[in-house]
Amino acid sequence: MSTTINQAATTSSKALTLGLFGFGVVGKGLYDVLQSTPALQASIKKICIKNTDKKRAIAQEHFTTDANELLNDDSINVIVELIDDADAAYIIVKAALQKGKAVVSANKKMIAAHFEELLHLQQENNAAFLYEASCCASIPIIRNLEEYYDNDLLSSVKGIVNGSTNYILTKIFNDGLSFKDALLEAQQLGFAESNPSLDIDGHDAANKLSILLAHAFGSIAKPSQFIYNGISAIKKTDADLAQQKHLKIKLVATAQKINDTQLAAFVLPQFVEEQDDLANVSYEFNGLITESSFADKHFFKGKGAGAYPTAAAVLSDVAALRYQYKYEYRKYLQASKPELTLDYYLKVFVSADDLNKIEKDEFEWIEEWHNEASNNWVVGIIHATKLQENDWWKQPGVSLILNQQPIVNNVEYKKINKRSLQLAGIV
Amino acid sequence: MSTTINQAATTSSKALTLGLFGFGVVGKGLYDVLQSTPALQASIKKICIKNTDKKRAIAQEHFTTDANELLNDDSINVIVELIDDADAAYIIVKAALQKGKAVVSANKKMIAAHFEELLHLQQENNAAFLYEASCCASIPIIRNLEEYYDNDLLSSVKGIVNGSTNYILTKIFNDGLSFKDALLEAQQLGFAESNPSLDIDGHDAANKLSILLAHAFGSIAKPSQFIYNGISAIKKTDADLAQQKHLKIKLVATAQKINDTQLAAFVLPQFVEEQDDLANVSYEFNGLITESSFADKHFFKGKGAGAYPTAAAVLSDVAALRYQYKYEYRKYLQASKPELTLDYYLKVFVSADDLNKIEKDEFEWIEEWHNEASNNWVVGIIHATKLQENDWWKQPGVSLILNQQPIVNNVEYKKINKRSLQLAGIV
Repeated sequence: MSTTINQAATTSSKALTLGLFGFGVVGKGLYDVLQSTPALQASIKKICIKNTDKKRAIAQEHFTTDANELLNDDSINVIVELIDDADAAYIIVKAALQKGKAVVSANKKMIAAHFEELLHLQQENNAAFLYEASCCASIPIIRNLEEYYDNDLLSSVKGIVNGSTNYILTKIFNDGLSFKDALLEAQQLGFAESNPSLDIDGHDAANKLSILLAHAFGSIAKPSQFIYNGISAIKKTDADLAQQKHLKIKLVATAQKINDTQLAAFVLPQFVEEQDDLANVSYEFNGLITESSFADKHFFKGKGAGAYPTAAAVLSDVAALRYQYKYEYRKYLQASKPELTLDYYLKVFVSADDLNKIEKDEFEWIEEWHNEASNNWVVGIIHATKLQENDWWKQPGVSLILNQQPIVNNVEYKKINKRSLQLAGIV
Repeated sequence: MSTTINQAATTSSKALTLGLFGFGVVGKGLYDVLQSTPALQASIKKICIKNTDKKRAIAQEHFTTDANELLNDDSINVIVELIDDADAAYIIVKAALQKGKAVVSANKKMIAAHFEELLHLQQENNAAFLYEASCCASIPIIRNLEEYYDNDLLSSVKGIVNGSTNYILTKIFNDGLSFKDALLEAQQLGFAESNPSLDIDGHDAANKLSILLAHAFGSIAKPSQFIYNGISAIKKTDADLAQQKHLKIKLVATAQKINDTQLAAFVLPQFVEEQDDLANVSYEFNGLITESSFADKHFFKGKGAGAYPTAAAVLSDVAALRYQYKYEYRKYLQASKPELTLDYYLKVFVSADDLNKIEKDEFEWIEEWHNEASNNWVVGIIHATKLQENDWWKQPGVSLILNQQPIVNNVEYKKINKRSLQLAGIV
């Protein structure tokens, strides 16, 4: 019976001729993956690189340093952009879309910085722009947010979206490495961005949250519009305290509806309980939890860094182009969508080498207080605007870690009379 | 800038008028979910039920007992089939597809039994047939297998696909309940099929594996073509032994390429290590691990049973119909795809109340041997055909549990000379 099916009856598939920008670990990874996937019938015609002097794994004739050789070649219908430099990437992607070419990119920084313009360019030129690899590498999260979750039902997306910092935290927690040694190891394994600050200061995770916000809730926001930090301030005493309490510390990106019209978003180190799915996301893995009213919780876990996992996501985008797939941005186009707000509270742990570095007056409520030589900390409730407007908590020696409950009900704490704290002698 | 986008520029969406068959927990769940999702603009025009005497949560005018009232109504463009009876469901789905209506179903038994014919019906009538809810309820696994994984790269899919048996196993392991009490609780919570044998004897999981095989590897096979069993034979001594060794017992469905052209498939209880992602899938949750050469491991976890999680998956199919989504069955249509085989070995633990019930001669290799009053067991290597052809291991008092390594390399054990075992006095 199976032979009676007409093989041509399936959706017409398009032959793909690729122009590739960049031949670093991911570019080389994509080349390898394509070599192993002849069924895809996608071929790389030309690779544009910055430096022709480097020794390459494949023949010199594949390379050029002239971007226009790819952009002006009408036989190239897909541009795959895998370069490090976000500004150069933006110029390439824009030019390619304007020429009506489909584009696949993994450059989260560039996408987060130019989201709205890139969306318009896709519409004006009727060109597909896919970037699954930009968010959690191999995990098909953008596709699932686009296709599976209906906007009305999704209430939150949160998770570990940076493989490099998660590798470092796992090495510190599980293997007792110092921050410095762990970072070095992540870099040697190719998990870290070439500029480590992008990872360890949270910029990379914030860029990914920006992309998640658009596809999960239709909300377009640059990282500067929400609270974020990385893991470089986390001290050994913080890790020790977490371990005593059977908690782990993870860098978690969160986008959460706090009511029907408002959305909170932040990237912060967070204490995570051992039973939490995120506690089981180790090394370079990423993990995401979606919550929706009816499907309830979903957990996705996969490799969030590395040449092949990233290349696999790029490949899946390329494969989707054969069938004219493109993001529809339905949630963004919806008339009513939740707006990003800073009107919410967070329960945070703040440690400091000197207690005076902790701005106690900024807190609405102080729940715990510890004062012991160089190990000082406070657990309290703080309003998000106080964190966004001031940066005492990002100063050297100060480490802020989110407590288990990410969002505190506004109403509950607005009623607090600060005088009670003053009377108790705490602020 | 955001207001300049033309809202009509998005893909044309289709108004959906639904005819619903069945108003049990899932049908009622779907009704509730649709009520909460006005943005979907999908309305249920009529609901066909078997028994009009039952008290219903909504007005009587919505109901009919005449299937043709839905099937012959041209204004109904989507049939949602949520009835228990697989034979009746098949007749409804077939008639609906023949009338060119789109169909959404959650009936894994019916789908597994008629897969190939249903596929032909879709093609002949150019009608979409979606059934995400049939496999792991709320987890979007079919969609991901269809859209994200390229056939050449996927090497295995395995996981916990039956929420009811997982609920029972969790209750036995975590809360010390007896099998009987745990089953009763699962039934009371609405997680179990109305006929408990479908769950506890592995039929339901086998039907789901059949669907997974088609979407993961393009291989169409009925449950009778592969090895499967449930959890009803698992004894307290098995559970105790697992706990001593820091293992859990889970009912795992596995589809795994053993080489480029051959595929192994089975559903068996399995010892799972504590660090394994599947060990953290508890109660009515389901969890699936995909493995592919480049993306490496992905883990998906979500609620695998219950009215709302199932209704959420049905809803996501209905939502996809607005955009003319249908499964392309690309892997099935591919010229070369792996064939199901029984030519592989499994390492299994078999316990029995009487050691004579274990057919020792069937084993290629016996690794461990325990003989103690009513607690007898053997760990050994057995060829899959021996399990498929004989059912001594499904007899009362015998319990077979897969060891950690699901597939043993063929070559390694074909070389074993059985005489060595005979000389050692074991067989």
